[in-house]
Amino acid sequence: MSRYWSDVTKSLTPYVPGEQPKVADLVKLNTNENPYGPSPKVLAAIREQAGDGLRLYPDPESTPVREAVARWYGDIEAEQVFVGNGSDEVLAHVFLALLKHERPILFPDITYSFYPVYCQLYDIAYETVPLTESMEIRREDYLRPNGGIIFANPNAPTGRALALAEVERIVAGNPESVVVVDEAYVDFGAESAVPLISRYANLLVVQTLSKSRALAGLRVGFAIGQVELVEALNRVKNCFNSYPLDRLALAGATAAIEDREWFERTRQVVIESRAKLTADLAALGFEVLPSATNFVFVRHPRHDADELARQLRSRDIIVRHFRQPRIDQYLRITVGTDEQCGALVAALTAMFG
Amino acid sequence: MSRYWSDVTKSLTPYVPGEQPKVADLVKLNTNENPYGPSPKVLAAIREQAGDGLRLYPDPESTPVREAVARWYGDIEAEQVFVGNGSDEVLAHVFLALLKHERPILFPDITYSFYPVYCQLYDIAYETVPLTESMEIRREDYLRPNGGIIFANPNAPTGRALALAEVERIVAGNPESVVVVDEAYVDFGAESAVPLISRYANLLVVQTLSKSRALAGLRVGFAIGQVELVEALNRVKNCFNSYPLDRLALAGATAAIEDREWFERTRQVVIESRAKLTADLAALGFEVLPSATNFVFVRHPRHDADELARQLRSRDIIVRHFRQPRIDQYLRITVGTDEQCGALVAALTAMFG
Repeated sequence: MSRYWSDVTKSLTPYVPGEQPKVADLVKLNTNENPYGPSPKVLAAIREQAGDGLRLYPDPESTPVREAVARWYGDIEAEQVFVGNGSDEVLAHVFLALLKHERPILFPDITYSFYPVYCQLYDIAYETVPLTESMEIRREDYLRPNGGIIFANPNAPTGRALALAEVERIVAGNPESVVVVDEAYVDFGAESAVPLISRYANLLVVQTLSKSRALAGLRVGFAIGQVELVEALNRVKNCFNSYPLDRLALAGATAAIEDREWFERTRQVVIESRAKLTADLAALGFEVLPSATNFVFVRHPRHDADELARQLRSRDIIVRHFRQPRIDQYLRITVGTDEQCGALVAALTAMFG
Repeated sequence: MSRYWSDVTKSLTPYVPGEQPKVADLVKLNTNENPYGPSPKVLAAIREQAGDGLRLYPDPESTPVREAVARWYGDIEAEQVFVGNGSDEVLAHVFLALLKHERPILFPDITYSFYPVYCQLYDIAYETVPLTESMEIRREDYLRPNGGIIFANPNAPTGRALALAEVERIVAGNPESVVVVDEAYVDFGAESAVPLISRYANLLVVQTLSKSRALAGLRVGFAIGQVELVEALNRVKNCFNSYPLDRLALAGATAAIEDREWFERTRQVVIESRAKLTADLAALGFEVLPSATNFVFVRHPRHDADELARQLRSRDIIVRHFRQPRIDQYLRITVGTDEQCGALVAALTAMFG
């Protein structure tokens, strides 16, 4: 604490991201990175931009990325797309621009743990809505007065997806509020709400290139919604940082969205590896929640989760454990390569002796 | 406007950056970019990072950049450095973390026009302090009760520098407030306040790689201050976006700070070109404020500034004109290559014909 800090600074409890170890040779299954790396076309586009042009400011409106997203979805216009420095920045602007109202906003008790942090930062009232016993979002729970709604679909860290028809009922049932669907993991097995956008003025979908496009290291996320919602995000962004994406990220993100073949191939491999990992963990006695993501959320009836995470860490395998009510007996494990998943299963087998 | 917008969103008047034309072949002297491009070592470092590693999140603490800044200044520790996605993002966090207090903050009436925009975004009270008739900051004007002080040194768009002794008196005279010195242009001819940091707990210096390191397109800025101030910035940053710099920007920024020779050589050329441009414009009848930056701020007793800017634009030369009280008869002209400056002078000569 310091007399120089603003009151809000004094009040903050920052988000703690998963460990980014500085040593190599670890089996890193803790932050849901894609094991397969970005498309070679992305790397070529970045190298091409690494020239004299870096002396010039980038396009403040990220036009090529917005146009690529619009082409990807077909029935979306570039004006309906907002781009930011990772979906975390996009979400931050969403909270300030669209979720700060008199009534508290709603989000699940178990979800992306950055949401309450944004609320703290911007002094936004919120209420958490418990997931069901089976860790699912129940649509009826979101049909009550609120200042906005946000949830991840598929949800994290549970990995469970909500059917599009259920998402639509939440959106349709809250015409006075913005409903934000955070689709960071959608490409690994859930239905995107993007096709609903033309029909619902209150729907905003947020996505990232960090997972299915294997670009966590490039920091690109985007939101899609009707122009009125996107304009609010642009207003806040233009009062914060005119140029959120550098020239390299603009080029790399555009190439990533355009390479459909790489995207399809790598996500299929991840989906197949997830099925195998799920079966292997179940065989070891784990309960594995059905996952529509590139991670699995598991617990073992006879082994303490924190203890398991520590033992794995000592064997150079990192998984994520959340010290949080309801889920402190779960581990979130990223779907790595089959080799990495095999190393995990072998280590657990040895530990269970 | 929309019922979905938050009140703050409705109230905003966003910052308008200088035009980024999408056509080439313009003489672009409107946004103070460096005409010489980044060091070849920067480009090599970026190309080396354009690989499979982009699938992994970057270092959330920008450690290599902080360490490079610390080595550059010698008597600074990496813990005293905060890094952001351009100095605009750094400034945004500074306003929320350190300049939001009960009393209004102070800044010059003529300065970086983003400052009042941040105040609007974060609901920060402010008072502007008029520059003198000669467009200078007068130290005595900042020795009164305030919630914080921020000014650019050299100031923009005036280009005038304040002597370090005067900066120190402002810092020493306000022990209860944070004094932020925005040194975006300092490397072109002013004295940095960084050497004062060890003696003043209330001093924060902000710099950018966009100007003297020719990396406007990479988006890297940083702040230096005692650990207590830097911790406030980290708290806010970690409630906003854990990973502000992508892996390419981390590598490029580090290489840029380390290449002292390229930095020294290119800034000397800019300083020499500025002297020539100043003389040429004076010969055409312009009043040219003494500049410690990579731009000149000029007015002509017989030609309207807005009209001049428009005529230059029709000749494919862009300069910056601010429609703002006190300076609406000035033009801000970036120091380009001697060839670009020559094109400007030739155009003006023809126009004055």
